[in-house]
Amino acid sequence: MLFLSSECHRLAQLLVDNGQTITTVESCTGGGVACALTAVAGSSSWFNQGWVTYSNDSKAALVGVSQQSLNHYGAVSSEVVTEMAEGALIRANADWSIATSGIAGPSGGTTEKPVGTVWFGFAAKQMDIPLTLRKQFDGDRDSVRQQAIAFAITQLATLIEQTSL
Amino acid sequence: MLFLSSECHRLAQLLVDNGQTITTVESCTGGGVACALTAVAGSSSWFNQGWVTYSNDSKAALVGVSQQSLNHYGAVSSEVVTEMAEGALIRANADWSIATSGIAGPSGGTTEKPVGTVWFGFAAKQMDIPLTLRKQFDGDRDSVRQQAIAFAITQLATLIEQTSL
Repeated sequence: MLFLSSECHRLAQLLVDNGQTITTVESCTGGGVACALTAVAGSSSWFNQGWVTYSNDSKAALVGVSQQSLNHYGAVSSEVVTEMAEGALIRANADWSIATSGIAGPSGGTTEKPVGTVWFGFAAKQMDIPLTLRKQFDGDRDSVRQQAIAFAITQLATLIEQTSL
Repeated sequence: MLFLSSECHRLAQLLVDNGQTITTVESCTGGGVACALTAVAGSSSWFNQGWVTYSNDSKAALVGVSQQSLNHYGAVSSEVVTEMAEGALIRANADWSIATSGIAGPSGGTTEKPVGTVWFGFAAKQMDIPLTLRKQFDGDRDSVRQQAIAFAITQLATLIEQTSL
């Protein structure tokens, strides 16, 4: 995971340079984004806390996702990762947040949301609304999760670079 | 991580056989225990939620660790992993919980608690008080964290086997 390590260090440097903090709220990646970030020595200066909200109930209970959104759009949706990212940002009082929700497989896929579908939400104090992105990853469960972890970190680093210009 | 994968499957099978659930609250492992557990397909039937409580404040705010214990014993202590494990167990309404708090390095070590010191807490509805264990791992930051993740999972599986006899 040399690529992932270098991307984590890139993100860490941006957070240190900006004096900002980050939080995570993860479903399909199951804590893997937080684990990758805290692999960086000194991460305690910009990472305080994260949540693994694997069940629907925990998405509601821990970070305030609405039952209405869960019922109407499903956990793997732009609406739900928006609410996850916003809920985590506020509760952690962080500058940035990453939310993930997807179908890692091997079961759980549908025609509309096949295995490998992952929604990402990125919220920030300095952005009016979260950015959400949908990706479709190939491969088995491990591969989908690893790609999702790497994408989340790379994408947030790029987003911070863009908003810092 | 073939060893870790087989230990996660062993723990998963025990939870499925017993109809039990597990939760995690992690400091030094940063979400790595939750990530390893949710790598198992079907883990949503026995894992609903977890916390990454990296800062002292988040240990208090998210799972109810007392400021008194944090101040008096420090975050890397039997007392704090006891409160982490109990707090997570109750909040997740889970049957088992795993708590980790340690010094992964490269900085932060002291004579009393050198780099590689990790405290583990295991709580269960069926146990009167949590079991806590202190381990001293060798190696760099990544190695300490990986050993801590593997130990937490292997130890809990063994504990479930023993209490199920």
